[in-house]
Amino acid sequence: MEQDINRQVLLKSRPEGIPEAENFEIVNTPLPELGDNEILVRNIYLSVEPAMRGWVSEVANYSEPVPLGAVMRAFAVGRVAASRHSKFQTGEFVTGMFGWQDYAAVKAKMIQRKVTPTDVPISTSLGVLGLNGLTAYFGLLDIGQPKPGETVVVSTAAGAVGSCVGQIARIKECRTVGITGGPEKVKICRDEFGYDAAIDYKAGDLDPALAAACPEGVDVYYDNTAGTISDEVLKHLKLGARVVICGTASIANWEPIPMGLRVERHLLVKRARMQGFLVLDFADRYADALQELTQWVRQGLIRYREDILDGIEQAPDAIAGLYRGENFGKRLIRIAPEE
Amino acid sequence: MEQDINRQVLLKSRPEGIPEAENFEIVNTPLPELGDNEILVRNIYLSVEPAMRGWVSEVANYSEPVPLGAVMRAFAVGRVAASRHSKFQTGEFVTGMFGWQDYAAVKAKMIQRKVTPTDVPISTSLGVLGLNGLTAYFGLLDIGQPKPGETVVVSTAAGAVGSCVGQIARIKECRTVGITGGPEKVKICRDEFGYDAAIDYKAGDLDPALAAACPEGVDVYYDNTAGTISDEVLKHLKLGARVVICGTASIANWEPIPMGLRVERHLLVKRARMQGFLVLDFADRYADALQELTQWVRQGLIRYREDILDGIEQAPDAIAGLYRGENFGKRLIRIAPEE
Repeated sequence: MEQDINRQVLLKSRPEGIPEAENFEIVNTPLPELGDNEILVRNIYLSVEPAMRGWVSEVANYSEPVPLGAVMRAFAVGRVAASRHSKFQTGEFVTGMFGWQDYAAVKAKMIQRKVTPTDVPISTSLGVLGLNGLTAYFGLLDIGQPKPGETVVVSTAAGAVGSCVGQIARIKECRTVGITGGPEKVKICRDEFGYDAAIDYKAGDLDPALAAACPEGVDVYYDNTAGTISDEVLKHLKLGARVVICGTASIANWEPIPMGLRVERHLLVKRARMQGFLVLDFADRYADALQELTQWVRQGLIRYREDILDGIEQAPDAIAGLYRGENFGKRLIRIAPEE
Repeated sequence: MEQDINRQVLLKSRPEGIPEAENFEIVNTPLPELGDNEILVRNIYLSVEPAMRGWVSEVANYSEPVPLGAVMRAFAVGRVAASRHSKFQTGEFVTGMFGWQDYAAVKAKMIQRKVTPTDVPISTSLGVLGLNGLTAYFGLLDIGQPKPGETVVVSTAAGAVGSCVGQIARIKECRTVGITGGPEKVKICRDEFGYDAAIDYKAGDLDPALAAACPEGVDVYYDNTAGTISDEVLKHLKLGARVVICGTASIANWEPIPMGLRVERHLLVKRARMQGFLVLDFADRYADALQELTQWVRQGLIRYREDILDGIEQAPDAIAGLYRGENFGKRLIRIAPEE
């Protein structure tokens, strides 16, 4: 489905907190001209990430904020439509930071890797075999350092990262406890992602539910939410516990910094650790990790869900939807057929 | 000054938060009888620690709460007055958990070590060459892991632990910044403990003072206070920073857990770590650490201050006094002459 216009989703205004549909606009532009050594990518799937909130925020972050009026920064997977680079041929699939748009003219360094279509669909390169899977992998294994027999608690347990964390922890012979919202997600956590226990945080008091699910306490807490969910989990930490700070989905706005229960005494009495990380810091180990993750997916040890929206016009509201908790699995926007 | 009664400071009631004079009573009891293999210690110096707040609290902690009506748990240093144990002879100095009392009849395992009076006074066995120095040593070096050239910030910088942290960090070639209360302590921090900068948190806004003292940000924050001081320091963390949770002096009461600024975003964006520790977990390395600390004290690389109160009747109010910030250096109670 080649076309001669390039639809782009631009950042129109900065949100206070979570980006909403009104912060974006869709424009039609001409196809980009290819410069020397550039590659023209026809995007097929666009990624939608909770982290996008940070990318559009003016506040200091791990990356420069997306400029106003610029194409929204995003991972995507697509097909090479034209190439003036010797290492990339027309028809090859590639993934990288191509933005929310139909076409991107990119330098080779913007391409993360080639994706070979096999038994594993190319869309996984944006989820379980992309940054989500890698985030789960390095956050759990390098920061959380789970040992066999330990109890691992995951917040947003049914999400793209959380579901992968739970399953890697299970592969590592841990007891896995997922916290998620609503009975349907609880069922998915148990039946699809193999959690030993799943807790619906919307269903009532978290404290007794955690006590029942983690009778010996929590060794590793992989935290995607912060907020009141974390406040409760921290009360159940075991001696020597590790808290992996991966995301803060339940905090709508960090300006000003909101209040919460103080953590110092938990950390002191339990000789525990809280640590933030950024997956990009592990870039030199992506290849090995992806090989292991791919193997686990092929063996059925890691299952994944995708939440695919059709059409680029779905993009502007898609981030806010993540924070509304409406997706089941990795959210993607399909803007062209794979074949 | 031998005597035939044993004055004891008993825990009379549990405080809510910080122990006050009214929570203790002093009683006269007969000298304890020595059982088989026991040692009678005539205490000379009793230690006063911020951690005693935790020892008398009913709330779960790293040790069993001191029972109501029991002698207050405390480190002390004293002389062996009588011995039915072959390894300890009358006249030797020993330190250990002997309690707030004139005499203790103890098993050998209650004795932490023999103290040899040399150029270093025996009182240091309760401070810079005791748990305070060890707490500074392991907390800074093992948990904080400072590297030469890094910036280390210490709260309660003039205190028994803090002053030692600052000086060890200086020995390790770090830039050292102390936070303390009042101009007199600021002067001590700079002139005696060699901090590169010292900040009076009572003198005004901490934020600009920290920005000026730590132009490149904070690599290691050794936290003895928690509270609003920590809230401000965390805003200045550098990429990969380590926060050592050692104490929570500025929090009067942990029941219920007080609110504070949420820490998750700092940890995430800065890929930083907060970690609690307990010095007792390093007991198998005390001997080596004490040897190194003693060397540093002898070389004048670590200076220390003692705040000595005379008479056991000073004990009941002595903990509250620490939290009022009235001491300059390690607080001790002298209840008998050294000779």
